[in-house]
Amino acid sequence: MRFASDNATRIHPKILEAITEANHGYSLPYGADAATAEAKRMLCEVFEADLEVAFVPTGTAANSLALSLLASPVSAIVCRSGAHIEINEAGGASFYSGGARVVGIPGDDGRLSSHELAWALSDFDPVRQFSRPAVLSLTQATELGTVYTVEQVAALVEVAKHHKLGVHMDGARFANAVASLGCTPAEMSWKVGVDVLSLGATKNGALAVEAVLLFDRRLAADMCHRAKRGGLVLSKQRFLAAQFLAYLRDGLWINLAATANSRAQELARALAATGRTEIVHAVESNHVFARFPEAVVDALEKRGALFYRRGGGLVRLVTSFETTAAEIEQFVAEVAAADSGNSIDHGAAP
Amino acid sequence: MRFASDNATRIHPKILEAITEANHGYSLPYGADAATAEAKRMLCEVFEADLEVAFVPTGTAANSLALSLLASPVSAIVCRSGAHIEINEAGGASFYSGGARVVGIPGDDGRLSSHELAWALSDFDPVRQFSRPAVLSLTQATELGTVYTVEQVAALVEVAKHHKLGVHMDGARFANAVASLGCTPAEMSWKVGVDVLSLGATKNGALAVEAVLLFDRRLAADMCHRAKRGGLVLSKQRFLAAQFLAYLRDGLWINLAATANSRAQELARALAATGRTEIVHAVESNHVFARFPEAVVDALEKRGALFYRRGGGLVRLVTSFETTAAEIEQFVAEVAAADSGNSIDHGAAP
Amino acid sequence: MRFASDNATRIHPKILEAITEANHGYSLPYGADAATAEAKRMLCEVFEADLEVAFVPTGTAANSLALSLLASPVSAIVCRSGAHIEINEAGGASFYSGGARVVGIPGDDGRLSSHELAWALSDFDPVRQFSRPAVLSLTQATELGTVYTVEQVAALVEVAKHHKLGVHMDGARFANAVASLGCTPAEMSWKVGVDVLSLGATKNGALAVEAVLLFDRRLAADMCHRAKRGGLVLSKQRFLAAQFLAYLRDGLWINLAATANSRAQELARALAATGRTEIVHAVESNHVFARFPEAVVDALEKRGALFYRRGGGLVRLVTSFETTAAEIEQFVAEVAAADSGNSIDHGAAP
Amino acid sequence: MRFASDNATRIHPKILEAITEANHGYSLPYGADAATAEAKRMLCEVFEADLEVAFVPTGTAANSLALSLLASPVSAIVCRSGAHIEINEAGGASFYSGGARVVGIPGDDGRLSSHELAWALSDFDPVRQFSRPAVLSLTQATELGTVYTVEQVAALVEVAKHHKLGVHMDGARFANAVASLGCTPAEMSWKVGVDVLSLGATKNGALAVEAVLLFDRRLAADMCHRAKRGGLVLSKQRFLAAQFLAYLRDGLWINLAATANSRAQELARALAATGRTEIVHAVESNHVFARFPEAVVDALEKRGALFYRRGGGLVRLVTSFETTAAEIEQFVAEVAAADSGNSIDHGAAP
Repeated sequence: MRFASDNATRIHPKILEAITEANHGYSLPYGADAATAEAKRMLCEVFEADLEVAFVPTGTAANSLALSLLASPVSAIVCRSGAHIEINEAGGASFYSGGARVVGIPGDDGRLSSHELAWALSDFDPVRQFSRPAVLSLTQATELGTVYTVEQVAALVEVAKHHKLGVHMDGARFANAVASLGCTPAEMSWKVGVDVLSLGATKNGALAVEAVLLFDRRLAADMCHRAKRGGLVLSKQRFLAAQFLAYLRDGLWINLAATANSRAQELARALAATGRTEIVHAVESNHVFARFPEAVVDALEKRGALFYRRGGGLVRLVTSFETTAAEIEQFVAEVAAADSGNSIDHGAAP
Repeated sequence: MRFASDNATRIHPKILEAITEANHGYSLPYGADAATAEAKRMLCEVFEADLEVAFVPTGTAANSLALSLLASPVSAIVCRSGAHIEINEAGGASFYSGGARVVGIPGDDGRLSSHELAWALSDFDPVRQFSRPAVLSLTQATELGTVYTVEQVAALVEVAKHHKLGVHMDGARFANAVASLGCTPAEMSWKVGVDVLSLGATKNGALAVEAVLLFDRRLAADMCHRAKRGGLVLSKQRFLAAQFLAYLRDGLWINLAATANSRAQELARALAATGRTEIVHAVESNHVFARFPEAVVDALEKRGALFYRRGGGLVRLVTSFETTAAEIEQFVAEVAAADSGNSIDHGAAP
Repeated sequence: MRFASDNATRIHPKILEAITEANHGYSLPYGADAATAEAKRMLCEVFEADLEVAFVPTGTAANSLALSLLASPVSAIVCRSGAHIEINEAGGASFYSGGARVVGIPGDDGRLSSHELAWALSDFDPVRQFSRPAVLSLTQATELGTVYTVEQVAALVEVAKHHKLGVHMDGARFANAVASLGCTPAEMSWKVGVDVLSLGATKNGALAVEAVLLFDRRLAADMCHRAKRGGLVLSKQRFLAAQFLAYLRDGLWINLAATANSRAQELARALAATGRTEIVHAVESNHVFARFPEAVVDALEKRGALFYRRGGGLVRLVTSFETTAAEIEQFVAEVAAADSGNSIDHGAAP
Repeated sequence: MRFASDNATRIHPKILEAITEANHGYSLPYGADAATAEAKRMLCEVFEADLEVAFVPTGTAANSLALSLLASPVSAIVCRSGAHIEINEAGGASFYSGGARVVGIPGDDGRLSSHELAWALSDFDPVRQFSRPAVLSLTQATELGTVYTVEQVAALVEVAKHHKLGVHMDGARFANAVASLGCTPAEMSWKVGVDVLSLGATKNGALAVEAVLLFDRRLAADMCHRAKRGGLVLSKQRFLAAQFLAYLRDGLWINLAATANSRAQELARALAATGRTEIVHAVESNHVFARFPEAVVDALEKRGALFYRRGGGLVRLVTSFETTAAEIEQFVAEVAAADSGNSIDHGAAP
């Protein structure tokens, strides 16, 4: 019953195998190796674009580095209020950009709407806020497990471009979004106007690697200096590249994400079927937000289920390529047991 | 004839094996895992100290993070002129500290002397330099392959403490220094007054991991926030810790470094024996700086030897745990061949 | 009817005279002049303390510089939500400190309570917030025109010190607070535990000068470097010092503040007497927050009254040493006229 | 005998008068006042350009702010080795830009040559230096009292633009250069390719004000936010603007600078006429670098002459609009006396 996070999984065997296979010979450091060149070539192919790339070890590094290419030190980075870059990355975007502020805008179900964005940008007062919006950052799939459609992203990009903002996509779970929508990677990125994509792999089977993809190569001029200054450039980079090679080969990344997405669907369906659980957001990737009586949540934890509490009985359940039908079944059974136990307790109360 | 750098080697089989073995089960992210706890325990044991530690993916990250704990934004970090932190880390120390300046002081053979340090600190004019020296950073083994004795470090630390500086040691090749001196890790670190040590593993067999060791635990208060802000905290941290477990177990780290050191000795001895090569610095770790006629250097490169040129016929040759007797033999033979060929050419000139 | 801000006033004649008088001879730059020494001596006398001081040209500079001495790059600066340092200083505190975050806590009437502070600090989660609270910043007089009593500050300081926070006071209107309370400058600063005070003069009659006062001289080690790096050190510093000399001489600063405070009292009383105005916060310094029907606010603006709107008919009225009884009288008359006009209009509506 | 610096002078009476005259009425703060608008209009007229401007209180502020508009956090700012921005501004350019490095290139007599610049830029290795040159900064008049001709600047700008660098001019003594050359302000700035000019006034008679002039208005987008963040925006800005109004009116600025320049000429001529003084750099603005026997320098100091020593008997003598014929005469007399005394002393020595 391991639903805490998709970053708690193992390395997928094929990716670990790729690291092992890359462990031969002598290889020039800092990206001047064959694996890095090949991984870059493959990314160009998969994304149908002559893109530039940097491989970095964490998602915070990828987002912060990406945003620093689009945001000046006194600019504002606009995102959904509660986005990972706003509350989970320790101010990394501000640090790497030299001071840019992250400004959150409310959005239902984890998604910004183009109307809300247009309103916020029109209403933004650079004089009072001491900054100028320079970047729109969208998380895809979102932190609440929902997924923007291509059309929704297009509408947001249109507003952003109208106000001269660059567009960044936090794609820590980009594969989940692509798998969910059935679109191509290109359709969900540069074709719809994304300038820079943080493409995650760690939460979907890698040891530790994320790629910053630049669809406008002019943005790349400073990237390696910024990455080096932050201590993000690995000497033995071939082992980052090797992970990506295995990740992309034969569509492994999409298959793993599709599996995780399916498990979330199954989990949500089974929970809903109990008739006693509220599923809070649309389940479109690998997250299920479910609300239980607090006593049920306590009981689930006591039974060893792993997940994060969000307050008021709301819990976040994250599936991965490793989630099994068995642990879903067990979890739902525990819910039923705990809930009836709980009901009984309540019933017993005068 | 692979003498370019020790960061171009493979992962040592035992370290790769440790990664593979760690790849089971479900593990809480960001260091809340058993392997991290165990690696920390082992470091405390090996260093005979109740230390605090952060595992990060690169040497620049380790040094920059370490220095940021000791240096204020307007302070000066004093090191040998030409140190890695001064010229090879893209301003990382300044970036992580919020603006500290790195100030190099000349030092022979890669080493600072306590006299030069005392003179520089006495002469330092905070008003004209707009900063106050706050940290002494020593590289051990040095960038020129020499090693400070315990007594030399003690003398430097005494000067530093007299001027109220903290002491950092860039130990990207700390194992090589310890193996060379035959001292204990504790004797070369906290016992001699080092406050913070960047302990390298990548150049000595790891995939990518360095440890920041704090011997004064009060310095640790901000460390995790600084690391997170820089994007240096891996979610699947167990795979960094696993590398360190294998690295330290049964003294593997010292054995690998001792092997690299021996290879450098053999290489230097064989080159000196040719009677036609000048060995420029004392060979005390895994570097040999050798001077050849420029034509010999060209010929060696043409024959596929890998190394870095330092100008004027000087080359840096770096050995590692993977360097073989055969490639040393081949290299020396190539030198002899190139050199005689070169002499003949010269002789043939009118 | 000039109630926009106390920073829109003229230079007080005595202060301008002091600048004129200082304009003789040849004077060493950057503070090595007699006026600077004398101003510092006078501040030590007025504050009954062996303090250190920096003179800077703006309030944002004073606060940012002061906070940078107490806050590390990954620390949190705690203040009342809506404080000047949080919303009006363009991120200056973060800029000068190298990244510290300003965290606002709700407080009624512009004041933090020690209970709210204690709760917030106990509840602060450094891991989730990626920072450690390092400074409490109190604005005195507050941005809403209220004034902390000595006892209230003492209670807040006790909580702050318990959590090992330094204490900063934003005293842009410190004179107004001291005049309001009738305490001594020492009683409202170091005697009650304030470590660093931004002491304003500009809003109370100076051309442009604020002093950063350090009651713990050890904090001064880096101050001049930080100030210089920010471009805050004037070469002709004697003209900043001269302003302070006149400002402090014969209690001018307290007299000017007392006048401004009295005018605010008179204004509030007269407005209240109309029976048609709500005075929103306690009037304890030189601000009156008054609520009118929106139509009245429009009418007042049309009649040339200067003030800032706060939405919903609420306006901020700021008095100064220049405010006259005549303009108060005129303003109240306009309110009465506008209001009755407004009533008539409303009455005329069917 | 006041030759220490031109920033040790008084406020010019007409500028002080302008401050006094501006001290009436009630004026909206932060630049929304009539004097600011008028000063801006006058600058547009004097520079024959539709420029944008910020008024700041110090030269370090002006340069740092100006450079931050042209330099990214990982870029390099190229200047002459020893330029004010490199060694006298406490890292302000790096601070305001978020990390840009200042890289000095040797230049004779205080001037860069276009050949040296071309060589340095061609030779610059972004990979090894971890940065990309983004700005050329020229000081005019230079720190050694020499002046670039329009043709020299044109040649430097051509090289800079070829390498896609922006061009900044540190014009702390711009008036001295213009007065020296007899060109127009426009000819020495935008017409020859300068993008941003720091235009000094403080060293030439103002209390404390420098203007950042942007000839490409697109660069202005972020300027006010950057200035505010640094605490550089004065509330009572009318008093900065007033200084500039008087400074520019009827060519006062050029007249004052011409006077200072003439005094330097007279001083140099008189010193040369003694036959015992070496004048080290061409005297083209208000600096004289003269070399004396050390004993003469000591004697001059003992006699109350104010200047800065540069080592080896070299002294820097700075004239200003206040320098009198009498003090030049006295200084030269003291030199003669000291020198002959010195000779006699030497002669008397056995």
